[in-house]
Amino acid sequence: MVEQITSMDVDFAKWYTDVVKKAELIEYTSVKGCMVIRPYGYAIWENIQKSLDRRFKETGHENVCMPMFIPESLLAKEKDHVEGFAPEVAWVTHGGEEKLEERLCVRPTSETLFCEHYANIIHSWRDLPKLYNQWVSVVRWEKTTRPFLRSREFLWQEGHTIHATAEEAIAETERMLNVYADFCEQELAMPVIKGKKTDSDKFAGAESTYAIEALMHDGKALQAGTSHYFGDGFAKAFDITYSSKENKLVHPFQTSWGVTTRLIGAIIMTHGDDNGLVLPPAVAPVQVVIIPVAMHKEGVLEKANELKEKLSKFCRVKLDDSDNSPGWKFAEYEMKGVPVRLEIGPRDIEAGQCVLVTRHDRAKETVALDDLETAIPRKLDEVRKGLFDKATENREKRTYVCGTTDEIISALNEKGDGFVKAMWCGDPACEETVKEKTGVGSRCMPLEQETVADTCVCCGKPAKKLVYWGKAY
Amino acid sequence: MVEQITSMDVDFAKWYTDVVKKAELIEYTSVKGCMVIRPYGYAIWENIQKSLDRRFKETGHENVCMPMFIPESLLAKEKDHVEGFAPEVAWVTHGGEEKLEERLCVRPTSETLFCEHYANIIHSWRDLPKLYNQWVSVVRWEKTTRPFLRSREFLWQEGHTIHATAEEAIAETERMLNVYADFCEQELAMPVIKGKKTDSDKFAGAESTYAIEALMHDGKALQAGTSHYFGDGFAKAFDITYSSKENKLVHPFQTSWGVTTRLIGAIIMTHGDDNGLVLPPAVAPVQVVIIPVAMHKEGVLEKANELKEKLSKFCRVKLDDSDNSPGWKFAEYEMKGVPVRLEIGPRDIEAGQCVLVTRHDRAKETVALDDLETAIPRKLDEVRKGLFDKATENREKRTYVCGTTDEIISALNEKGDGFVKAMWCGDPACEETVKEKTGVGSRCMPLEQETVADTCVCCGKPAKKLVYWGKAY
Repeated sequence: MVEQITSMDVDFAKWYTDVVKKAELIEYTSVKGCMVIRPYGYAIWENIQKSLDRRFKETGHENVCMPMFIPESLLAKEKDHVEGFAPEVAWVTHGGEEKLEERLCVRPTSETLFCEHYANIIHSWRDLPKLYNQWVSVVRWEKTTRPFLRSREFLWQEGHTIHATAEEAIAETERMLNVYADFCEQELAMPVIKGKKTDSDKFAGAESTYAIEALMHDGKALQAGTSHYFGDGFAKAFDITYSSKENKLVHPFQTSWGVTTRLIGAIIMTHGDDNGLVLPPAVAPVQVVIIPVAMHKEGVLEKANELKEKLSKFCRVKLDDSDNSPGWKFAEYEMKGVPVRLEIGPRDIEAGQCVLVTRHDRAKETVALDDLETAIPRKLDEVRKGLFDKATENREKRTYVCGTTDEIISALNEKGDGFVKAMWCGDPACEETVKEKTGVGSRCMPLEQETVADTCVCCGKPAKKLVYWGKAY
Repeated sequence: MVEQITSMDVDFAKWYTDVVKKAELIEYTSVKGCMVIRPYGYAIWENIQKSLDRRFKETGHENVCMPMFIPESLLAKEKDHVEGFAPEVAWVTHGGEEKLEERLCVRPTSETLFCEHYANIIHSWRDLPKLYNQWVSVVRWEKTTRPFLRSREFLWQEGHTIHATAEEAIAETERMLNVYADFCEQELAMPVIKGKKTDSDKFAGAESTYAIEALMHDGKALQAGTSHYFGDGFAKAFDITYSSKENKLVHPFQTSWGVTTRLIGAIIMTHGDDNGLVLPPAVAPVQVVIIPVAMHKEGVLEKANELKEKLSKFCRVKLDDSDNSPGWKFAEYEMKGVPVRLEIGPRDIEAGQCVLVTRHDRAKETVALDDLETAIPRKLDEVRKGLFDKATENREKRTYVCGTTDEIISALNEKGDGFVKAMWCGDPACEETVKEKTGVGSRCMPLEQETVADTCVCCGKPAKKLVYWGKAY
């Protein structure tokens, strides 16, 4: 039998680690916070990569590859940036038997490397913009670690762009936030709030940070992607200049934006259930699993193979013809979150049909074999929509509009963790107080602002912004 | 004008660095031996990746991702392995402000990490084989560095597989060597010799190492890919066991195999010429560049755009409609090695035709616009074949059969560097002596053995093996 996992309602954290291990997404290693991403987990990441990479290229970006090492003096060139990152980097001090003249850190992010490169290659307005991206891993020496959500090494893409004007750079920052949001909603079936971070929560060195925030099944918030506008701060720190059309030497404007393997954690905690993983079809390594019933009977395996061949033309299909029982296989592929299961046995074959079962709602449908070419894409789209609606419903149910900190406390107590929508005066002290009193911090100021009250949830003074608050992963 | 590069005949090494810089493949950074791979260079690597990844998956391999850090104690578990790699690894000693309890090296290769993982996940014969691959970067603290050829950080793929039997593992080692050879010859148009390394040249920890060796334009040899058979040595050192069908606890057998961004260096030095890069069509980021002539004349740009649209359906095409002169553009895309140039001007349009120029031989052909769908694929194939033949011819011209070390010395003196085919008795002392006397070391014992003499090129005793000798990059 497929091993049992902890119920989500009993212990969500334990449920999560059970799923990542038993669905064979990761395995631990002897280095704390560094994990092996196993084939099934990596295949999800490859699908995420393919889809995002296409979107990046369609919006004019080119891939590059920067070194993984940053000399200490280079990291230190922009003051806020080094203060934000130096405490959590891994330091290389020796190459072979020799002590290095200068320590190198393993990149926690690559702004400084891109800046050094820009300074080398950008001279004239003709050299702008540069729209770059790279797919690499980065290292941040976190104290507490959890697979996909917070690890010392993680995979990501980091976009880095440089523009002649502030307007262009701001437009890029917003464009990429929209690309992320669209990807999350369309491909991962995960609704997100697009917003701007408060100043206390900005990326180290950024003028403004935008983020997409998603609500997990347990009511905690997860930052699923960020997009930063740097102004010309990095350009000044790194002495990047270009001669403008008017032949003046001026500083360009920059952005950076990234999503990570954390998205896999978001998928697990948005869609998963007590039977394991539930994968959105767009990134599922296997979209349809064929499970033959009464496999030893004449013609069953032949038919199953024939179907596999046919389906492989329009979806990612797997036939499990191992000698495990159908019941074991049902549980196994539920654990692995395969969106659609196709059951086929002797009687089905006789009737020219098969049974399709969707993972997320266990709905069964008998479908004529001749109709599979239309039925499977329809099913996959139903799954996507079903997942999105379910996740949206969970988020709506767990979003509380509050006018005072007391209302926040009682909403969370009565209804459990979730997003709190409440007004804010703009004072960092109030932000801090809300967190201390209620346990929820500011997640973002949504781009779609509403006025849910006139006064700040904390101090009662006139409110300036609607803020989403929440407990964060 | 496009800047001049050093002639190959004047200074091959300088020519090489001129090309990598001026074709915008790489840019240097402040960390010695670590480079920025720029969009044009990275796009070549992406094409290599796509093609190889497809071949790996077709042969049953799955991608995974191991951590980049290896604890010192883990690296040390296999004696030969640690002796081979420890002197050239980068050591991480601090995480943030804290000194680590144990040093971690940045992976120079990942056998030890795979072994640790295998020990965790392999229990029964049902768990075998595992056919894994990963696309990552690795670090080796080299003293002398050159872009793509020998850098401290480089990108590669490393395949790692584990099997129930030695036979299976040996077959895998050979299969992947063949995959590499086929890829190099079919896609990179680069002829290679498949062979086995002598014991002195084996990978640290391997029972046997196979390699593909290519001859560069200057007559030096380049190891373009390796495939290692480990026997059960690693399995014993890492205590990896499985229960066999006979219910006995036994050790499995392993392989690993890899190619790196060095292949880009191989492409440059195999096909390049005094006008710059010459790219094989399969991996060229741009396969056809459209250069409009008399661009300001009515209808020229429209036609050029129309052609771009049409060609983009079956090849990677770029239209350069910048305000640089056609002459500048010709030189620029020759420097960048674009396989086919399409020139179109007002008179061509009137005649319903265009001019195709192939980069490697500058052959011109006038082609009817209606025939482009067949003419372009034909041209691209001609280029591939032309490059392969030219490279093969260079290798044949520079391959010398020698019976004594004196013959080697005079062949190299008279005809320049190249491959030396000479017999060997199998004694490592002779191998060493040949290198000392003649400057050429053993490259490999080719799988296709011939007998070019009866006696060892060095000691005159009975010969056992034909060896290819050469000066190596």
